Amino acid sequence: MAVLTPRATDFPRWYQDVLAKAELADNGPVRGTMVIRPYGYALWERMQADVDARIKAAGAVNAYFPLFIPESYLRREAEHVEGFSPELAVVTIGGGKELEEPVVVRPTSETVIGEYLAKWTQSYRDLPLLLNQWANVVRWELRPRLFLRSSEFLWQEGHTAHADEADAAAYARRIAREVYRDFLTDVLAIPVFVGAKTRRERFAGATNTVTCEGMMGDGKALQMATSHELGQNFARAFDIDFLGADGARHLAWTTSWGCSTRMVGGLIMAHGDDNGLRIPPRLAPTQVVVLPVRDDDAVVAAARELATALTAAGVRTQLDARPGLSFGRRVTDAEIKGIPVRVEVGPRDLAAGNATLARRDNSTKSPVALAEVSTRVPALLDEVQAALFAEALELRESRTADVGTLADAAAAAQTGFARIPWRLVGEEGEARLTQDALSIRCLQTPDGAVPAAGDQGDDLVALVARSY
Amino acid sequence: MAVLTPRATDFPRWYQDVLAKAELADNGPVRGTMVIRPYGYALWERMQADVDARIKAAGAVNAYFPLFIPESYLRREAEHVEGFSPELAVVTIGGGKELEEPVVVRPTSETVIGEYLAKWTQSYRDLPLLLNQWANVVRWELRPRLFLRSSEFLWQEGHTAHADEADAAAYARRIAREVYRDFLTDVLAIPVFVGAKTRRERFAGATNTVTCEGMMGDGKALQMATSHELGQNFARAFDIDFLGADGARHLAWTTSWGCSTRMVGGLIMAHGDDNGLRIPPRLAPTQVVVLPVRDDDAVVAAARELATALTAAGVRTQLDARPGLSFGRRVTDAEIKGIPVRVEVGPRDLAAGNATLARRDNSTKSPVALAEVSTRVPALLDEVQAALFAEALELRESRTADVGTLADAAAAAQTGFARIPWRLVGEEGEARLTQDALSIRCLQTPDGAVPAAGDQGDDLVALVARSY
Repeated sequence: MAVLTPRATDFPRWYQDVLAKAELADNGPVRGTMVIRPYGYALWERMQADVDARIKAAGAVNAYFPLFIPESYLRREAEHVEGFSPELAVVTIGGGKELEEPVVVRPTSETVIGEYLAKWTQSYRDLPLLLNQWANVVRWELRPRLFLRSSEFLWQEGHTAHADEADAAAYARRIAREVYRDFLTDVLAIPVFVGAKTRRERFAGATNTVTCEGMMGDGKALQMATSHELGQNFARAFDIDFLGADGARHLAWTTSWGCSTRMVGGLIMAHGDDNGLRIPPRLAPTQVVVLPVRDDDAVVAAARELATALTAAGVRTQLDARPGLSFGRRVTDAEIKGIPVRVEVGPRDLAAGNATLARRDNSTKSPVALAEVSTRVPALLDEVQAALFAEALELRESRTADVGTLADAAAAAQTGFARIPWRLVGEEGEARLTQDALSIRCLQTPDGAVPAAGDQGDDLVALVARSY
Repeated sequence: MAVLTPRATDFPRWYQDVLAKAELADNGPVRGTMVIRPYGYALWERMQADVDARIKAAGAVNAYFPLFIPESYLRREAEHVEGFSPELAVVTIGGGKELEEPVVVRPTSETVIGEYLAKWTQSYRDLPLLLNQWANVVRWELRPRLFLRSSEFLWQEGHTAHADEADAAAYARRIAREVYRDFLTDVLAIPVFVGAKTRRERFAGATNTVTCEGMMGDGKALQMATSHELGQNFARAFDIDFLGADGARHLAWTTSWGCSTRMVGGLIMAHGDDNGLRIPPRLAPTQVVVLPVRDDDAVVAAARELATALTAAGVRTQLDARPGLSFGRRVTDAEIKGIPVRVEVGPRDLAAGNATLARRDNSTKSPVALAEVSTRVPALLDEVQAALFAEALELRESRTADVGTLADAAAAAQTGFARIPWRLVGEEGEARLTQDALSIRCLQTPDGAVPAAGDQGDDLVALVARSY
């Protein structure tokens, strides 16, 4: 029952089909906006909770800054306004009147937060000042795509001020590693390359942008989260200065970093298969669905008992005994929604004192004694989590080629990532790649580390790919 | 040390002082917008988590709908557009171009959600459809006031569709009771009158608005949450219909309900005193602060040990041993921030094997053996929670008067609430009250229940007050 377009036939169409059939999202009425449906939102909500805990563990606290930013704020940082101007939504009427100064709907909040960092940063004792906010932002999109590129999206944006450059850089990298990379690999089961953006791809106003790049099922790259060293660019524009221990005033060094609902798109494309989503168990809002094979009292009662035992064992469990829906239909639904494990119970299972455990990731089934379901399932969920990561890593390894010429990079990037010495590309080569709809996703040092701001060293390695 | 204007001197000024000194919020750069600072946001975050759990327990699921609404959507429900038009922020430029149809920044989402309820409501089996979203909304404010009335605020808005009127009404009331009233009383420790708004005060487009009205420290009322029965008004405007079990198509009945960051303002004004906030323990981000009286190694070590033991006992605890800040300064800070209990340890306490427990709500202090701190504190937090509620209830009872004439109602409402038979007021009397800046906060049946939609019965009781 091919309810979805096969990925090999048309990957973008498959993506749209999954969004619709798994009831993840819908187009909003205003071009480029998106309605996140309950199941899509449940995925985001769990991402949010996990990332939020990691951000707090890294010492930042949540706050909230206004949606509306005076247009003049954006103009204070030259590169920033140039980067964002074409994407702005502008409010010109408020309370029935033309506004004297139009206000911009935030595309990101460096400017408005900069204004307050300046207010709150008086002495070196106030530093580092580590803030985060969960918010919606708006960037007018000409070619919108649900979750991946929408005119409005949800995200967190961290904004910090530090006494010196080294502390700012170390914190931006800590966030990239301990919040983003660890979350993406340990929870979303998506391996990522962590590196620095080239000058061309850098965030508007940053001196260094650290990025986490994942590979999707079609071999394209997706930028999944970024962390920016902003140098003193915003500190200068917004007078974020402080009285140092030396009694003199100094400009602060700032950072900003974010991840968004785009990760939902990445989750779909990194793990999805021709039967639908495959959600890693650590993220899954529902880890296990218990399915009675028949609408039969004894079977449904046994299924209900299993669901209760699983819930008691700390497994996020749902019982799907919807009347009027065939077993096959309920299985298909669980598959499309990517629920990691199904526990199926039929009269024959019951007669043998068993249930059947069905894994979503590799479609294997195995019988298990009823009494052992609630101890076996947690271990099985760990296996599924590990298997999804291993599979994604294997895909990436098999589709990443080390090459020695720009032409070979362009060829390899048609199906995956090409790794090429940066000195063989350079800014001119990079410009040429864009003509083939390719880009440098990031630069790494030879040992895979993130280059420092301004590092254009001869030994850097560039990762070339098609991308979302 | 009067860091705050006394409440009796100037209540609004006291409110502003608390916002600043407790570092709760600041004005945004665009008129009427607000910056919620980390401590203010921590209060909101905890409100959010608790209300969210109650909403989920009531069966609703979270989703997210776009910030931008086509102007034409608002016009489909006549009362609704009339109610909200004067407060709208309108985007006329997007992506550098004048938009063909201006879009409105959502003041509330009945219209855009109505469009999707219509799509998703096909058969009676799809009903009830119970959605909620956490979002920012914008209503241009001419007289903004942080948390109470800001041009942008954060809230949740629930939107549901039902097969019949009784089910819709029952659900709207269930939300008012089990989510709002229970949260406000059990967590925020604020007693509320639950009643129905008069036609004049009703939500634009509703057939019945159920409200929770709290009394603030100055005797004014604050509308803390509302739940609306929308009849078939939005169902008609957005074609929310369904195929009934009878094979015919029927219009659905919808509800909407919300509570917002305004509750933070209510929390401040219901419990705050001349020394600052008083946060009920169940809400408090920090329930206990442990304060070493002196910067002395043995004392700080003992304080640290107590903080560890309290944290282990499940108490949200902070150690405040900031060097360079006197004990008095740290006490004042804990008082302003309203931390329910302080555990103070000095050399003399230590010598006696004791610590001192200081309650924020009534300023009493008592010694406790060091070994008993972590068992005594949880019980003490419960006492503080109950005492704050009792005090708020006593204030309300002492300032609520039963009266028999409109003149007496107007007089009593200068300092609190007046309860008067609705038949002695009527819509004409209500109009007169507004000339004295008074309003009917809600109508109740004689036994304190919520009147049904359209109930104008002679036995209803009106609650008159000044309000925020």
